[in-house]
Amino acid sequence: MGLRLIIGGARSGKSARAQALAEAQAQRRGGTPVMIATAEALDEEMRERIARHRAERGPAWRTLEAPLDLAAAIAGLAPEDCAVVDCLTLWLSNLMFAERSLAQETDLMLEAADHALGEVIFVTNEVGMSIVPENALARRFRDEAGRMNRRVAERADEVEVMFAGVPLRLKP
Amino acid sequence: MGLRLIIGGARSGKSARAQALAEAQAQRRGGTPVMIATAEALDEEMRERIARHRAERGPAWRTLEAPLDLAAAIAGLAPEDCAVVDCLTLWLSNLMFAERSLAQETDLMLEAADHALGEVIFVTNEVGMSIVPENALARRFRDEAGRMNRRVAERADEVEVMFAGVPLRLKP
Amino acid sequence: MGLRLIIGGARSGKSARAQALAEAQAQRRGGTPVMIATAEALDEEMRERIARHRAERGPAWRTLEAPLDLAAAIAGLAPEDCAVVDCLTLWLSNLMFAERSLAQETDLMLEAADHALGEVIFVTNEVGMSIVPENALARRFRDEAGRMNRRVAERADEVEVMFAGVPLRLKP
Repeated sequence: MGLRLIIGGARSGKSARAQALAEAQAQRRGGTPVMIATAEALDEEMRERIARHRAERGPAWRTLEAPLDLAAAIAGLAPEDCAVVDCLTLWLSNLMFAERSLAQETDLMLEAADHALGEVIFVTNEVGMSIVPENALARRFRDEAGRMNRRVAERADEVEVMFAGVPLRLKP
Repeated sequence: MGLRLIIGGARSGKSARAQALAEAQAQRRGGTPVMIATAEALDEEMRERIARHRAERGPAWRTLEAPLDLAAAIAGLAPEDCAVVDCLTLWLSNLMFAERSLAQETDLMLEAADHALGEVIFVTNEVGMSIVPENALARRFRDEAGRMNRRVAERADEVEVMFAGVPLRLKP
Repeated sequence: MGLRLIIGGARSGKSARAQALAEAQAQRRGGTPVMIATAEALDEEMRERIARHRAERGPAWRTLEAPLDLAAAIAGLAPEDCAVVDCLTLWLSNLMFAERSLAQETDLMLEAADHALGEVIFVTNEVGMSIVPENALARRFRDEAGRMNRRVAERADEVEVMFAGVPLRLKP
């Protein structure tokens, strides 16, 4: 089914855009909007934030937590579902922390996305439009994020970039 | 009257673009280009920089200094004026330093812009296309800047993003 | 001949895009794709990285190393050549380290590009879409990079920005 990628900076309105698209799609297809959340509730502050986001989305949404195993979450979608994966950069950060192979996990995830029954809208961050970070881990992270984003964009049917809440079509 | 937003990175040519648009508009309307400057002359270096910018704009421009009270400066525009607000991110930084309520000040500013008699061109920075800053204040700043930019873009009739001095239309 | 500028973040696919364009152009013109590399092999790691890049480009490419004297490398192109200058931000960094005059070196480089017999595709980084760096040298670098990028974009016949490997036309 259709794959879409929304890329943008922090607080550029990526999540709001993805959720609006998913709700419209799910309604059209008589399905459910599904949030595949990559955030992990590791502390009280994070737990509260996740609960607040869930409440804001409302009862129409189903939420899956997938800090690491995105492929499984995507593979489990029903044909009428429209899922938002929010977000790929946080997933990458979780994978790096867990010392998983980034190339291999991206392979598995894209393989699942290619065979997904429902629609998938990926949210990701552009993290490379600054001077080179002094921190070596930060440099590695932005290299890996760039590689991952390019691979997902290559497979996506539609790609948009966001500035100040305004989407701009990059592809097709 | 018309609201326009120009967003871009540091040294991307936002100010030059905004000033050229304001001069053209002011000429068409038989009015004056007005610089609403959010920079504050807190030290000698800043005073010199502000004076240099004023000299570069030339005598056709009227300059208002509004480090905090943008709403008042915008409300005072004449119908034939065309104003450049340069820039919103510096204004946000001044508000944070003065511990004002950012949401409330943005409300007041947008309210003034909605009722402005003249045209207003806002200049702002995209500050979120990098890895997450280590500094907590910097993280808060980029969150607030993103929120503010989205609110202004939502009200604006036209939005452009700049790369290397080249404008790209985002809206309409 | 034609000048083109490709701007983007780290790992956004700028080099791959530039190389694909150069290979296609060189084939059309019966010439050679030329890599004008601004990286310097100052240590073993860098030497290996440069050698790997050279091997990846393959034997069709001619490689010129020009960490500082871009003008001379560009002036030496043959009419049927299509060159990639990768990248301008690294060149700027080399010039700053060598304490050369950035404005003057950019003049010389653009003068050479204007009179170049072959085509030239410049690769550069957008480095200003983040919060203001704390480091003074980093701030100066991003100011200078912005100025240089604007000057090159002004002269270029075509300008593109890259996100996640997808090019977006900015000019014409």
